[in-house]
Amino acid sequence: MEFNPGKHIFKSPKVHAVINEAIAFLNQTPIYQLPSPESFIGTGVYCLYYLGKYDIYKKIADANMTECNHPIYVGKAVPKGWRTARTGSEEDATLAQRLREHSRSIKQGSGLDVNDFKCRFMILNGEESSMITIVEAALIRKYRPLWNTIVDGFGNHDPGSGRYDQAKSEWDILHPGRSWAEKLKGKSPNLEGIKIKIKKALE
Amino acid sequence: MEFNPGKHIFKSPKVHAVINEAIAFLNQTPIYQLPSPESFIGTGVYCLYYLGKYDIYKKIADANMTECNHPIYVGKAVPKGWRTARTGSEEDATLAQRLREHSRSIKQGSGLDVNDFKCRFMILNGEESSMITIVEAALIRKYRPLWNTIVDGFGNHDPGSGRYDQAKSEWDILHPGRSWAEKLKGKSPNLEGIKIKIKKALE
Repeated sequence: MEFNPGKHIFKSPKVHAVINEAIAFLNQTPIYQLPSPESFIGTGVYCLYYLGKYDIYKKIADANMTECNHPIYVGKAVPKGWRTARTGSEEDATLAQRLREHSRSIKQGSGLDVNDFKCRFMILNGEESSMITIVEAALIRKYRPLWNTIVDGFGNHDPGSGRYDQAKSEWDILHPGRSWAEKLKGKSPNLEGIKIKIKKALE
Repeated sequence: MEFNPGKHIFKSPKVHAVINEAIAFLNQTPIYQLPSPESFIGTGVYCLYYLGKYDIYKKIADANMTECNHPIYVGKAVPKGWRTARTGSEEDATLAQRLREHSRSIKQGSGLDVNDFKCRFMILNGEESSMITIVEAALIRKYRPLWNTIVDGFGNHDPGSGRYDQAKSEWDILHPGRSWAEKLKGKSPNLEGIKIKIKKALE
């Protein structure tokens, strides 16, 4: 029998359909001030929305005034042991943890006020947890959130002692103040260059 | 507004449906001698079937005589940069690589003949690549393949120099001969214990 790779390629319209279903679901979930109102269990995907007065983000804030539909950042929390684990564990509290962590970053970042941020989030457990990465990717493709696509580094973590010789991220240059980022000693990106990039992206 | 986590949990019957669709698809793909007939591009999921005469695997071989439906091993090849990457890259040749690697393991493993092995595989690219982990998990739950659930270690890789102080896996005790496994110096599991486990599992 001749080998035909095409006979082995699995495609299903259900995959695309369920991604769209998930995005539509997320967009009708209740919206909260950042961080979320209380802790909760689960992994999944979230959007952060900016509604403040920081000059170069004005266009984003304006776009969200009537309805929050233009995230400034999209992120995910995946189950522990994600690469090898058999199913999403419902014991991971990482979605709530990520939102709290972002809240801390924003509180420390100069020019930002955490009260100007809202969030939406979607919990994906069990079989649905397999969709987390692809739903996040689809949201980023759809909304091109500024802090995912133009300004790099918001989602970074403290690299830990002994690894502070790396450069600050663009986000940390634009919004200096994160305690761990202030320890970074590498050659920083140029502030004016970042601002120009943003202006161009929001034109 | 009171916080109700239930409003944020996304469940869709499409997720379960597409997993079942994928398994049904895999089960009707052409079957080949191990390794696959030629190299091909793509990531995805595969099943290995045993049809030989190794005594304690007799029940598995018998079950596959009329139709290969009882895999001895199920595995996956995920896109590079899986944790962070935005989409499955079609440049990963890892599914074919994994099959070749398994073929080498079996050729070196005592008591086995690579000609007694067949394989099925399913290529999941692009959005479908998000399903790889969950489809593999569903196949393992459904078929309880011996080398996934009872005998540990078939899918292991060479740990590399400086890390040979770990123990041989159960698979390497049962089928000694893999070149890298022979270098492992840790306390080995007991051969009789492994055989008893297998007999019990196949009762």
